[in-house]
Amino acid sequence: MITTANVKNGVNVDQLVETIGHIQEQPELAKFEFRAKNNWINGGHCVSSIKSFYGAGQEDTTREETFTMECSHPQVLLGEDEAATPPEVVLHALSSCLTGAMVYHAAANGIDIEGAESTIKGNADLHGFLGLDPEVRTGFNGVTIQLKVKSDASAEQLENLAKFSPVFDMISNPTPVNIEIVKQ
Amino acid sequence: MITTANVKNGVNVDQLVETIGHIQEQPELAKFEFRAKNNWINGGHCVSSIKSFYGAGQEDTTREETFTMECSHPQVLLGEDEAATPPEVVLHALSSCLTGAMVYHAAANGIDIEGAESTIKGNADLHGFLGLDPEVRTGFNGVTIQLKVKSDASAEQLENLAKFSPVFDMISNPTPVNIEIVKQ
Repeated sequence: MITTANVKNGVNVDQLVETIGHIQEQPELAKFEFRAKNNWINGGHCVSSIKSFYGAGQEDTTREETFTMECSHPQVLLGEDEAATPPEVVLHALSSCLTGAMVYHAAANGIDIEGAESTIKGNADLHGFLGLDPEVRTGFNGVTIQLKVKSDASAEQLENLAKFSPVFDMISNPTPVNIEIVKQ
Repeated sequence: MITTANVKNGVNVDQLVETIGHIQEQPELAKFEFRAKNNWINGGHCVSSIKSFYGAGQEDTTREETFTMECSHPQVLLGEDEAATPPEVVLHALSSCLTGAMVYHAAANGIDIEGAESTIKGNADLHGFLGLDPEVRTGFNGVTIQLKVKSDASAEQLENLAKFSPVFDMISNPTPVNIEIVKQ
């Protein structure tokens, strides 16, 4: 008998079930620490390197590539537009995470996802960032995502699956950020 | 007499002061809308395209390049590691934004920044994402950034400048996210 991997939506469901089993036996395996190193270039232009992380009880040894990403600002925000702005990068992370969470949880629930694409928007008012009005927040007032999905599941069901997204949690709920400045 | 641009930390301070003046005269110019388009590839692998945005009273016409970014997951999270994970991308956006905000506000306040680099970490527990414990959040429990800065300003002053960061606001405070699922 030939056995093939049980893959749905590109997710290996056997491996997912196995992972859940391991975590139920050893809760410590669920702990992850993600990291980035960031270097300032000039003005609002920065570059990050991402490679190492801790998870499943150990330092990762499988990642071969260091991922490099930049942030910058367009001319109207006094930059030279070498890369997307940090708030735009958040929109990338949030839309990817909502989609990925929906796809993984759909796979775990036996739901086929045949296609998914989204448009995401965030609104901001520079009175906040520029310190011109303390009542105006510096970040987005709100984010709207329209996620088009090809699936037999209901829109409500798909939305509930997407809401397992870690980045959705980080944006919609407060996450403590501890800043330590070290003078060089 | 030859006049040169008043540039500090790579930020054109004359242009910054001019921008503030324009916004004080016409508050509508402060409104920005940032956008991304996201396409699902497979499993937890997605790609975003970022180009158009609205700001300073009009649709931007200056950005020539479409910025393309991917998200994926390492093997231990059932992916093929084509790119950084969405939570790692958030660390990139947050560290870049804290640094950029510090640099812009330092320039506006006549403070020189000679160098800046940071290490940022976020901790998560998969019991949340996997739906194994409703008490555990899906996102980071917390984020810690160590930002090393070469400057004459005090650590406290630099921290206060960094905290103008829009992404810092988005992560540390709740931002409403409206999800609309459209069945295809």
